[in-house]
Amino acid sequence: MPKLWNETIETHRREVRHAILNTTAALVAERGLLNVTMSQIAEQTGIGRATLYKYFQDVESILRAWHGERIAHHLAHLIAVRDRATGPGERLEAVLEGFADISRRSRGHFDADLMAVLHRDEQVTGAQAQVQDMIRDLVADAAQAGEVRDDVEPGELATFCVHALIAAGNLSSEDAVRRLVAVTLAGLRPAD
Amino acid sequence: MPKLWNETIETHRREVRHAILNTTAALVAERGLLNVTMSQIAEQTGIGRATLYKYFQDVESILRAWHGERIAHHLAHLIAVRDRATGPGERLEAVLEGFADISRRSRGHFDADLMAVLHRDEQVTGAQAQVQDMIRDLVADAAQAGEVRDDVEPGELATFCVHALIAAGNLSSEDAVRRLVAVTLAGLRPAD
Repeated sequence: MPKLWNETIETHRREVRHAILNTTAALVAERGLLNVTMSQIAEQTGIGRATLYKYFQDVESILRAWHGERIAHHLAHLIAVRDRATGPGERLEAVLEGFADISRRSRGHFDADLMAVLHRDEQVTGAQAQVQDMIRDLVADAAQAGEVRDDVEPGELATFCVHALIAAGNLSSEDAVRRLVAVTLAGLRPAD
Repeated sequence: MPKLWNETIETHRREVRHAILNTTAALVAERGLLNVTMSQIAEQTGIGRATLYKYFQDVESILRAWHGERIAHHLAHLIAVRDRATGPGERLEAVLEGFADISRRSRGHFDADLMAVLHRDEQVTGAQAQVQDMIRDLVADAAQAGEVRDDVEPGELATFCVHALIAAGNLSSEDAVRRLVAVTLAGLRPAD
């Protein structure tokens, strides 16, 4: 087959996959994890059931793939946010704000069953570790610049930040998220 | 029946219930949630299967009861810690330390399946709300005494504290827990 034809197939596959992920996420958000079937997903995506099964074996694996894409997107966003800021203190603040925003927007979308499934997922644990490592490096840089306390290890401070900012999932306004970031940063300030 | 006899039965029932809860918790810790059956629990508790079913309908409900008792115990502990301390700042610090200790000791006991089951549990949500309300009231008292910032609502600060201190579940030493509490308290200090 000519190269162009392969590329067309590859593009098509990506588009179908993308459509399956989005359809499933929307259906689960609407009906709950336990009320969505592979047949409904195929119908709503506009493909045959047999085609759907060529891509995914069950609803859970579709959701994991969907979640994996969101996580990759969030990590890329945080890296971009970090690289736009200048100076160690600003970089740290920008990433903490970005992470708090993600926490706020990620919560309350889905039901408890889905959260239970996703939180057992290794890709979630892996992504949390990546975010925590990124924050740890930024904390270390800021500590070296004298903008963050150096009496506690950067790794421990990063653990503190990630947990504190997950609280953004319970906050109702963007202003509250800004205040949460300010309080978290106050915890990081050099001791007098 | 005479009153004494009723009391004896009541005491016996409580003891059997207690034995069931502890046996189940130990079995689940050892084998994992999905590998424990009602028959094993009855056998290890030293009672008949029929008796066990008079107390609980399945393994999950035993675990919920066990977890409920632990939560009640933790809340009572935090109230005692609070009431032993004098002065608003000390009370807040003592309760934050107590909560961080509980977070540290509660983690890593069980497998992910069990955590998923328990976290869908309303009694967990209710207990978290009670802890958060207690911390909110202590924060409000300390803010009035000028020992905590008053530019952020006590409720938001309490949400920050609870989430930040859950990080203790990932810390390996008591010293690290002390440092986490210190960093969290630093976030609460009045802005200059």
